[in-house]
Amino acid sequence: MTSTHPHAHHDSRARSIAHHLAAVTELLRPVAALARTESVPLSKALGRGLVHDVMAPLSLPPFANSQMDGYAIRCSDVPDGGAALSIAAPVPAGTSAPPLGEGMAAPIMTGAMMPAGADAVVPIERAIPDHFPAAGEGGTVTLPATAPGTFVRAAGSDIAEGEAALAAGTFLGPAQLGLLAALGIPEVTVNVPVTVLLVATGDEVVEPGRALPAGKIYDSNGTLLEAAMTQAGLQVRRAGIITDNPDELRKLLRNQGANADLIVTTGGVSKGAYEVVRQAMTDQPVDFMHVEMQPGGPQGIGTFEGTPFLGFPGNPVSCLVSFEMFLRPALSALLGAPAPRMPLRARLHQPLTSPAHKHQVRRGTLCADGTVRLEGGESSHLMHALAASNALVHVPVGVSALAAGDEVEVWML
Amino acid sequence: MTSTHPHAHHDSRARSIAHHLAAVTELLRPVAALARTESVPLSKALGRGLVHDVMAPLSLPPFANSQMDGYAIRCSDVPDGGAALSIAAPVPAGTSAPPLGEGMAAPIMTGAMMPAGADAVVPIERAIPDHFPAAGEGGTVTLPATAPGTFVRAAGSDIAEGEAALAAGTFLGPAQLGLLAALGIPEVTVNVPVTVLLVATGDEVVEPGRALPAGKIYDSNGTLLEAAMTQAGLQVRRAGIITDNPDELRKLLRNQGANADLIVTTGGVSKGAYEVVRQAMTDQPVDFMHVEMQPGGPQGIGTFEGTPFLGFPGNPVSCLVSFEMFLRPALSALLGAPAPRMPLRARLHQPLTSPAHKHQVRRGTLCADGTVRLEGGESSHLMHALAASNALVHVPVGVSALAAGDEVEVWML
Repeated sequence: MTSTHPHAHHDSRARSIAHHLAAVTELLRPVAALARTESVPLSKALGRGLVHDVMAPLSLPPFANSQMDGYAIRCSDVPDGGAALSIAAPVPAGTSAPPLGEGMAAPIMTGAMMPAGADAVVPIERAIPDHFPAAGEGGTVTLPATAPGTFVRAAGSDIAEGEAALAAGTFLGPAQLGLLAALGIPEVTVNVPVTVLLVATGDEVVEPGRALPAGKIYDSNGTLLEAAMTQAGLQVRRAGIITDNPDELRKLLRNQGANADLIVTTGGVSKGAYEVVRQAMTDQPVDFMHVEMQPGGPQGIGTFEGTPFLGFPGNPVSCLVSFEMFLRPALSALLGAPAPRMPLRARLHQPLTSPAHKHQVRRGTLCADGTVRLEGGESSHLMHALAASNALVHVPVGVSALAAGDEVEVWML
Repeated sequence: MTSTHPHAHHDSRARSIAHHLAAVTELLRPVAALARTESVPLSKALGRGLVHDVMAPLSLPPFANSQMDGYAIRCSDVPDGGAALSIAAPVPAGTSAPPLGEGMAAPIMTGAMMPAGADAVVPIERAIPDHFPAAGEGGTVTLPATAPGTFVRAAGSDIAEGEAALAAGTFLGPAQLGLLAALGIPEVTVNVPVTVLLVATGDEVVEPGRALPAGKIYDSNGTLLEAAMTQAGLQVRRAGIITDNPDELRKLLRNQGANADLIVTTGGVSKGAYEVVRQAMTDQPVDFMHVEMQPGGPQGIGTFEGTPFLGFPGNPVSCLVSFEMFLRPALSALLGAPAPRMPLRARLHQPLTSPAHKHQVRRGTLCADGTVRLEGGESSHLMHALAASNALVHVPVGVSALAAGDEVEVWML
């Protein structure tokens, strides 16, 4: 399958991955409209994208506080060689500390507010005695000389009031939600989830759990894509399997497509004689073309009676690759959710070949030593090999062969 | 903070990360009991762990089929130089093909069953004429010589009936669920989700959205851990904030802990004077100790009236690190879900120092060029820096300093 002619099999209707991704992003732009946003409590915002920039309404920490259990002191009270200071009333966390008198040391707990006048904390382990006095007892404590700022978390040292905390389009994971909570923000504006109507097509596919007649296979596209879309935050409606009857498909899409933000079909988009999705779309503004990608080359894109439509090919690996290369990154770009895939570098465990005029997407296992082992061949029906993989391996256009040890871009699934 | 003495500050009650992880895993072992499994449809199994090995009940593909739209032929009918063959009835996908007569070529669609006798497919592009006859028409087609097996997906070439498809303990993501569907398996046995009672403690913490008195901070631990646990497939019950009153905490845990598989508290576990969780656990089999880790050193572990209990420290970064280092990997090991973090290698963007007797966990941004940029310092209150990070950076025990360009292990969050 190697070729010295980069465009030897170039389809006159073929388009680049970048071109098709831009078209999918444009098709889906309405789902990012401001009218489609809602305010939700932090506990409902996990995995969604932030609509507006968030500025810090307060500083973090809000006040200077102690990083240790120990004594808050005024450094100028302790010369080189140390000094004995009188023990003031203790400062527990959560209280507003009174100012520190001169020559005094205040017992202070981790996270407690530094008293006015104090500028450092001496950990209890470095004090003599190295334990706090009992409640109500005073006395003196001997402490070493200490530089100002030692074991003090300055107000605003994490973020200052008014600074940018999170940018619009940020994916809201645990840490981002934790930051909003720390800033005292209980609710956040996110996009309304995108609803997808997912339709598997083909005379040859049968729902798992039913009997399997000769010549037929179980549908895995529906299960695979429903799971991938759910992981990505989409709300998926499954429409079951439509056989190769275009009227049936049109009827289904008319009945159920209008309530969805997007229709995705699997199968029926290539150039064979029985391509139900192509047939059902004849009077709709839908283009069918070949993207310079393997697998997942045949793609349909347009609208069905006004609802955005994507037609994925019929093999499961092609479906997942179509989702990962077009739908998922388009949603990431438009909504900030799902989080974009991180491009990583890995070294090939074994050589590969690839059609030079196509971007090949192989499946593999990224290992802890930084190598990636290919799972199965290039063929798009290899579901078991896909299930053994944890990554997609990218071989760009113009590359027809790579050797073991060559670097590739991988995306962890 | 660097030290040339690996155990300079070694706490006599300190334990290694491996020791504590083993203890947490042992504590949680009951949640992996077979009595706690359920059979669910594939659409409900996303993100859960497989309980039993799954053997393939059928081969994939179930039958030899065509990889292309083209003509199914018997290779021996076409000598070098090609031959004209009579066109047989077409074989659409999803039908049981009749045997191929000698000297015949059967139009065949991608995925359609190879007729008995046929051993290769010639793509339609290589046929003369290069289009199929109209329905009902026959005629002849001229085809090139072809090697047996060309463009044929052999039965069982992905997986053969009876082979191991998925092992017990496999995380069920889209591809694994797709494989089960392809094998015709509609339901799968998974573990019942683990229920956690999550309790934030501390006189100093306030629920986001309320007014913030002087000396207090907003609770971010609850939001952060609820989100991290939810992402990991746990069912989280939030118990709000308990002030530093041990009786109140005991009452809450008695009322709500019994229905949970696990109690997790935040705060109140270190050696200060007002450690509510330590105080509430005095009559329970709970150990408090220091793990050789920074942040997240102070940890509590045991049972409260029989319910497994983990006491995390009070700073948000310490909470997340405790979750990622102990609870999450213990669940991965016991249940197969969540999926284990993948250890990746990256080169440090800047130097760092670390206490040699502790495993330091820093936060950073893994970049596409394979470097990791540290976000914020080592301090455990830096929530904004955590929210800007996409990875944890590991500095093992025994290392006190690393230079820019040095390799480290990172876990993507």
